[in-house]
Amino acid sequence: MVRTVVAQGTFDILHPGHVHYLRDAAAMGDELVVIVARGENVTHKQPPILPNSQRVAMIEALEPVDRAILGHPDDIFAPIKELDPDVIALGHDQHHDEDAIQSELHRRGIDCAVNRASAREPEFEGELLSTGLIIDRILEERR
Amino acid sequence: MVRTVVAQGTFDILHPGHVHYLRDAAAMGDELVVIVARGENVTHKQPPILPNSQRVAMIEALEPVDRAILGHPDDIFAPIKELDPDVIALGHDQHHDEDAIQSELHRRGIDCAVNRASAREPEFEGELLSTGLIIDRILEERR
Repeated sequence: MVRTVVAQGTFDILHPGHVHYLRDAAAMGDELVVIVARGENVTHKQPPILPNSQRVAMIEALEPVDRAILGHPDDIFAPIKELDPDVIALGHDQHHDEDAIQSELHRRGIDCAVNRASAREPEFEGELLSTGLIIDRILEERR
Repeated sequence: MVRTVVAQGTFDILHPGHVHYLRDAAAMGDELVVIVARGENVTHKQPPILPNSQRVAMIEALEPVDRAILGHPDDIFAPIKELDPDVIALGHDQHHDEDAIQSELHRRGIDCAVNRASAREPEFEGELLSTGLIIDRILEERR
């Protein structure tokens, strides 16, 4: 039996924190499918710079990822129902309530563990481990 | 015999053009090693936003890449001599003179083909296929 893991996020400007999350997620099973948020659904932070298809293409090019798809426009649980994963891997800093997710999965009859990925330890000086930090650096150096 | 291909570049903010180049390069042999330019050696355009180690880590996370290393501080041919590749893959838009490279390789006793990767055909609307275009978009939308 292939154990499918689902990870998800916006994945705008890629950085080693994304890679760490996806490697950690991939290690939770045999196959990693990543759901990439549609720009129009990103409301808890500034909308992404890069278009939907570009973010999907870049995530699919990362070594730990088997497949990337765009999220559903209205129902974030719809692709989960379809993929029927064994594990949902949350990023260490994603503001999701594991219990709330677990009970919604239960309500929809999806039997799936909810795990949280570890944080990446800083590995070298000066690394920029978030899209926001990269954008800030660009605004400082190029404006 | 393992055919080694070397690709090289700055690889600042990653985009699908980079992925296309590296997939094309990987297809020229069995093993792809990527030489990532040190920020201090990037003089023909603005210096990269991201630190050396971060750019190496991100290139190493891409599926077509087997290994990434930082370039030599003074001698761009030094790592080529050490890696002794079968093919050097140039990016479609890299301003290198194939003949000049070939004659320097010859002078140094390196027997290696110099191929040029194809350009990526645009695949979807609104894609930003250069680090410069991504930075311009960030400056427009977030300044």
